[in-house]
Amino acid sequence: MLETVALQLVRYALSEDVGTGDITSLNTIKSGVAARAAIVSKARGVVAGLDVARLVFREADPALRFRPLAQDGDRIESGAAVAQVVGDAGSIFKAERTALNFLQRLSGVATATRRAVDALASGGGKTRLLDTRKTTPGWRRLEKDAVLAGGGSNHRFSLGDGILIKDNHVAACGGVAEAVRRARSRKGALLKVEVEVVDLPGLDAAIAAGADIVLLDNMDDAALAEAVRRAAGRVLLEASGNMTRERLPRVAATGVDFVSMGAITHGARAVDISFEVVL
Amino acid sequence: MLETVALQLVRYALSEDVGTGDITSLNTIKSGVAARAAIVSKARGVVAGLDVARLVFREADPALRFRPLAQDGDRIESGAAVAQVVGDAGSIFKAERTALNFLQRLSGVATATRRAVDALASGGGKTRLLDTRKTTPGWRRLEKDAVLAGGGSNHRFSLGDGILIKDNHVAACGGVAEAVRRARSRKGALLKVEVEVVDLPGLDAAIAAGADIVLLDNMDDAALAEAVRRAAGRVLLEASGNMTRERLPRVAATGVDFVSMGAITHGARAVDISFEVVL
Amino acid sequence: MLETVALQLVRYALSEDVGTGDITSLNTIKSGVAARAAIVSKARGVVAGLDVARLVFREADPALRFRPLAQDGDRIESGAAVAQVVGDAGSIFKAERTALNFLQRLSGVATATRRAVDALASGGGKTRLLDTRKTTPGWRRLEKDAVLAGGGSNHRFSLGDGILIKDNHVAACGGVAEAVRRARSRKGALLKVEVEVVDLPGLDAAIAAGADIVLLDNMDDAALAEAVRRAAGRVLLEASGNMTRERLPRVAATGVDFVSMGAITHGARAVDISFEVVL
Amino acid sequence: MLETVALQLVRYALSEDVGTGDITSLNTIKSGVAARAAIVSKARGVVAGLDVARLVFREADPALRFRPLAQDGDRIESGAAVAQVVGDAGSIFKAERTALNFLQRLSGVATATRRAVDALASGGGKTRLLDTRKTTPGWRRLEKDAVLAGGGSNHRFSLGDGILIKDNHVAACGGVAEAVRRARSRKGALLKVEVEVVDLPGLDAAIAAGADIVLLDNMDDAALAEAVRRAAGRVLLEASGNMTRERLPRVAATGVDFVSMGAITHGARAVDISFEVVL
Amino acid sequence: MLETVALQLVRYALSEDVGTGDITSLNTIKSGVAARAAIVSKARGVVAGLDVARLVFREADPALRFRPLAQDGDRIESGAAVAQVVGDAGSIFKAERTALNFLQRLSGVATATRRAVDALASGGGKTRLLDTRKTTPGWRRLEKDAVLAGGGSNHRFSLGDGILIKDNHVAACGGVAEAVRRARSRKGALLKVEVEVVDLPGLDAAIAAGADIVLLDNMDDAALAEAVRRAAGRVLLEASGNMTRERLPRVAATGVDFVSMGAITHGARAVDISFEVVL
Amino acid sequence: MLETVALQLVRYALSEDVGTGDITSLNTIKSGVAARAAIVSKARGVVAGLDVARLVFREADPALRFRPLAQDGDRIESGAAVAQVVGDAGSIFKAERTALNFLQRLSGVATATRRAVDALASGGGKTRLLDTRKTTPGWRRLEKDAVLAGGGSNHRFSLGDGILIKDNHVAACGGVAEAVRRARSRKGALLKVEVEVVDLPGLDAAIAAGADIVLLDNMDDAALAEAVRRAAGRVLLEASGNMTRERLPRVAATGVDFVSMGAITHGARAVDISFEVVL
Repeated sequence: MLETVALQLVRYALSEDVGTGDITSLNTIKSGVAARAAIVSKARGVVAGLDVARLVFREADPALRFRPLAQDGDRIESGAAVAQVVGDAGSIFKAERTALNFLQRLSGVATATRRAVDALASGGGKTRLLDTRKTTPGWRRLEKDAVLAGGGSNHRFSLGDGILIKDNHVAACGGVAEAVRRARSRKGALLKVEVEVVDLPGLDAAIAAGADIVLLDNMDDAALAEAVRRAAGRVLLEASGNMTRERLPRVAATGVDFVSMGAITHGARAVDISFEVVL
Repeated sequence: MLETVALQLVRYALSEDVGTGDITSLNTIKSGVAARAAIVSKARGVVAGLDVARLVFREADPALRFRPLAQDGDRIESGAAVAQVVGDAGSIFKAERTALNFLQRLSGVATATRRAVDALASGGGKTRLLDTRKTTPGWRRLEKDAVLAGGGSNHRFSLGDGILIKDNHVAACGGVAEAVRRARSRKGALLKVEVEVVDLPGLDAAIAAGADIVLLDNMDDAALAEAVRRAAGRVLLEASGNMTRERLPRVAATGVDFVSMGAITHGARAVDISFEVVL
Repeated sequence: MLETVALQLVRYALSEDVGTGDITSLNTIKSGVAARAAIVSKARGVVAGLDVARLVFREADPALRFRPLAQDGDRIESGAAVAQVVGDAGSIFKAERTALNFLQRLSGVATATRRAVDALASGGGKTRLLDTRKTTPGWRRLEKDAVLAGGGSNHRFSLGDGILIKDNHVAACGGVAEAVRRARSRKGALLKVEVEVVDLPGLDAAIAAGADIVLLDNMDDAALAEAVRRAAGRVLLEASGNMTRERLPRVAATGVDFVSMGAITHGARAVDISFEVVL
Repeated sequence: MLETVALQLVRYALSEDVGTGDITSLNTIKSGVAARAAIVSKARGVVAGLDVARLVFREADPALRFRPLAQDGDRIESGAAVAQVVGDAGSIFKAERTALNFLQRLSGVATATRRAVDALASGGGKTRLLDTRKTTPGWRRLEKDAVLAGGGSNHRFSLGDGILIKDNHVAACGGVAEAVRRARSRKGALLKVEVEVVDLPGLDAAIAAGADIVLLDNMDDAALAEAVRRAAGRVLLEASGNMTRERLPRVAATGVDFVSMGAITHGARAVDISFEVVL
Repeated sequence: MLETVALQLVRYALSEDVGTGDITSLNTIKSGVAARAAIVSKARGVVAGLDVARLVFREADPALRFRPLAQDGDRIESGAAVAQVVGDAGSIFKAERTALNFLQRLSGVATATRRAVDALASGGGKTRLLDTRKTTPGWRRLEKDAVLAGGGSNHRFSLGDGILIKDNHVAACGGVAEAVRRARSRKGALLKVEVEVVDLPGLDAAIAAGADIVLLDNMDDAALAEAVRRAAGRVLLEASGNMTRERLPRVAATGVDFVSMGAITHGARAVDISFEVVL
Repeated sequence: MLETVALQLVRYALSEDVGTGDITSLNTIKSGVAARAAIVSKARGVVAGLDVARLVFREADPALRFRPLAQDGDRIESGAAVAQVVGDAGSIFKAERTALNFLQRLSGVATATRRAVDALASGGGKTRLLDTRKTTPGWRRLEKDAVLAGGGSNHRFSLGDGILIKDNHVAACGGVAEAVRRARSRKGALLKVEVEVVDLPGLDAAIAAGADIVLLDNMDDAALAEAVRRAAGRVLLEASGNMTRERLPRVAATGVDFVSMGAITHGARAVDISFEVVL
């Protein structure tokens, strides 16, 4: 359903950017003039969002021909052309800014993800990088796909497809055991139960309560390593909080199953990608 | 119409984040339990998006009471509470992440804008900061409002409400004079005409062609100063390209009327804002 | 988000039933005439959909007062009033049929579920009843809530929030072990993996492959009992196929964790519920 | 406009069932693997909804080729294939459940209708079967088309395209004559006026008042026969209430013009139709 | 459902007129300044659309207070105030143009209708004025309500709620008798059948074929009078084509039941209504 | 974006006119019968809306072939065919009325515009005709395009893309100078500022305040001529109010830059255009 989700946003984005018509091009360029444009990266990174860009051009004018020169997830150098588009000049100008706005942001997410994944890998081991729900409102599906393009893995998509018990839920239930018990209730009978803890006694309690996964929040490397020892494979372990790229190799070395980082989405910087047109 | 535009996005964002229901809270927290939450900034900056956050809570549950403790545009210190929300705990948890995702990004835009505006002001003079169309697709109205909150000014909203003649338009018309003439045509008869140029001869030609505004693209400070001298008030001047915060005081000193920067939107970093709940 | 999902359907349903206006009432009843109506069940069953009915009346006319006399999940006898509505007669007539059409169908689902749950309980043990994706298109959230009202549990909501490996997936992967390995991939890294099997060797293979849950399709009671013995708690077991209410106690006695039945949704009969108006 | 109405529901239904993506197939089946599936009935009945099923596959993936092997209204035996679909395996799996959920329910309505129509015909005479407004909210157009497929006729589509005066309307007007007079008013000046009555004096009054059609509610066969005699062709007669398939031949023998039955829609049982895939 | 239909159009109309915000008022008028405005007619006529105007102001700002000083259908003199609105000045300016655009056009329709109805009445007899489907696309419900306000009656709302057999339908069926027979088919079993004819033999054939209503197209007054004689009450008669206000009394004198005129909608002139604001 | 805007309206208009199906054609004409229709003007005028008509037929049935025989803006004589459509008869009948309703109204706007433009031209000089915001709600884009087709120019599209300071804004600011200053604020920093005045002192004040354009409201020809002399090219001048076609040549002779007339949209009469079908 990528296309369905993206299509709504693409259509809205075009209407937002084009407004009542590209008044400059309509006044200055004859309808029917052909143009050719290259979409070129001005920086190193990982590209993502090419399918979205394709949709932008198709929605702006189904007669435009969009040819990707790379695939989502490819590493690109500065100067590399990632796509080409050919067709009516007015249509291309109408779609240009919107297509770039998508590509720049999504490539930014893929690039940030790839850097974190590579940092984890340099620490050895099998630790996988997870995204979070700290995404741009309206863009979750797109940004989560960009995370996959960057080599990361997806955590739950929404509050409806995963159980994550935090301190407030525990407090409301009078204890983690009761919280886990209630979470395994009729609604969501078959989902994994994840419990967030802040220290090792919390981990012990979560395991005793029957958690499937434990989120270790804001713990230092030594504590993470000890958590791996104690869990001994009985639960999956996810480390979160205060993650920097420099620290990731050390976290990977502790042996946790997952690291989750909001910064790969909300902190990603747009990749500088530009448009070169030949009339 | 802020509310109308934002409302669509807010509703979609909530449905995206809540999915088929906050399965964790539904299973662990009794309906009707009251809670109180503070929204607290973890960093210095300028807040924006409080009206959007209010909409998020209202859409999640009209019975929630949202009380802003600051106004869009206020400078805030780390630790400052910017709003409070009181009501049903399940409703608050349902809206929390979406509200923060909006606030963090929009405050990021306002903060980046304020820093650039302050840098311009430190150079003396009257140069104003403009935004661009390099906004997050779907968020243009919101990000442009955040630019205002940060002290910036708005450039055109869409391709439909401003004329900006670039090199391709000039090429298609066989010259800037003809391009300006066509731009002043029946569609958009009353709009100002802006022409983008890359050097001083371009400026001269644009003025001769009757432009109202000239965009000086990627020119150095000396060239900008010379452009101000040559224009002598006959047109408004907008400088763009290669703008860094360090350079802004020098650009302001040249006397250009406007500086436009895409980085205040596409390059803004989210401000770290968090949620503190008391059941 | 019940309200959000239901609201769209409720609004469409009203527009579908009212068309260009209730021409009979508009022509014969003066605007402003008050009426009182009782919603009365003509059969035994379990009521569900009262919140949806409330939405129908509110959307038809916000001034109508709807008072539920029962809660979703309550067992009701023939003749029992489940709600009362008071207000403008024309508004009540406009909403009547749509409200009943919702209540009759959702109460039918709750009733069918309750009968199956009671049958399972009479077999002793802890076996829980699950729903399926065999729901009325457009009604999934509503029917799954009606299943909860009837005492059942929810299986996955959509293809996006649960992994269920069937024979075609196994075939495409060249074996169940590879299918499970791939399912635990980056997209959906934290979901449980369920594997559908048709015999005991299949069960053994699924357990060896690392499944979390095994769906035992179309197996007889003896095979189910043997499956429970072999699994020995290493995986959750779900029995499906050829379930009749008569058989359910015997299935419960085998000790499987879950039974899933499409018939509680697609085979549910509407409960006869009617409207009694006093002008 | 079948397509327009159905399209909205089909799109919503697919999004509802697919959610954020068919995570199982996406992880286990390579994009581009071709498959062929047959849609096979497991029971006798009358098929309906093939056009809707076609829309489901087209919306899921326009490249799928859907070939119907029967037409809406055809009687089918258990084991009969009603359609074939060929194309990308992942696309087929994505659409399968939704297509079946539509086909099963709509074929159920056509089957129930056909049985009632056949029962009426066995009683001799020209009595036609009408549907009612007791349809699944959101499905009225689809279910009314399924009634036509089963050999039935359509009563009014909504409150806006037919006048049906019930006891409450009569009460509000102080008598049936006044109610009919008002109904023939400026809004709906050209529609037929139908009056619901519960006994023979009611019929006499309705005829005297100028009704075009009289609905005989809950009257026994003798009363229906007498009504036909009294009306003597001056009005059309519709019998309703307490209709069972066993009784229908006797009702047809009374000579009423129409019988209306809510049970052909709200009481229809889904026909068991299944999917057989070959990769 | 007036409100539902009108609401969509009102919202779109506001967004269309306000665009990205009333930039003039936002820049020049402080938020919170109160204003009072009168809506005043500059011409004689019949007012309609007051409920729509109310919706416009409510949607622009729910805090505005709108007080109608007349009712739809009232005759008004030049200089008469038809409504008053009080509240935030910026909100009033935002809604002003859209409210007037609705009121002017709908009052124009009511005025044109009233003039035609009065002309018919001056001819004596009971002939009623009908509207047609020649309405502004998107405005049918609104314009048909304005026709009622002007004293006219409504013909069918859409192609779906009335049968009107024209020459092409007759040709396709090989004769009017067969066309009427087919029209009385399963779909639309209970609707009246109207047949369009161009001369008296056509009328005879239509009556013989069993039409309920006959539309006499483009016939002169003598022919209409003869048609009334021949029909002798067996069918309703509707005259159409070449109707001018001057001719209407003579047409009424022929005794036809209805006259239909497209000009009361597509040819209506906007009534000049203006806005007088006091800050 | 013409297509996007028009498409929504076209779809709604079709659903409004077709309702639950063209019951007459469905009952009387076999599916698959081919027909050919000509769209013929019954009056002189200027045609507009052909692209919208094309959309209507495409949305009704993508298989219909629509061939325009004229272009928007062409002058047409009575009897001229402006388009031809070929395909399934039922589809053509379904779309006919809606297509005509669009064409008649939009051609009416183009015709009224052309007459006013011609009248201005006959007065000599360069005065251009502008439209206003007095358009049919929901139709602004379409009617403004029809104005272009008739040879007119477009004033601002919405309140968001132009600044027009009226007396209330001046009053709220305590003077025109302050109003102009505020209007040149951060929101809309680059738009032209237009000020409405009612006499020559007002014009002087507006020029002194720095207006770019001055709207001369309800001034007579002598005053307009004097205004042109005083302004001496420092601002653009727009005359408005009490414009009749007879007066336009004299207004043109005064030398004002623009005349704006609401009557070309809200007062336009539909051009009589009809449909001729051959089965």
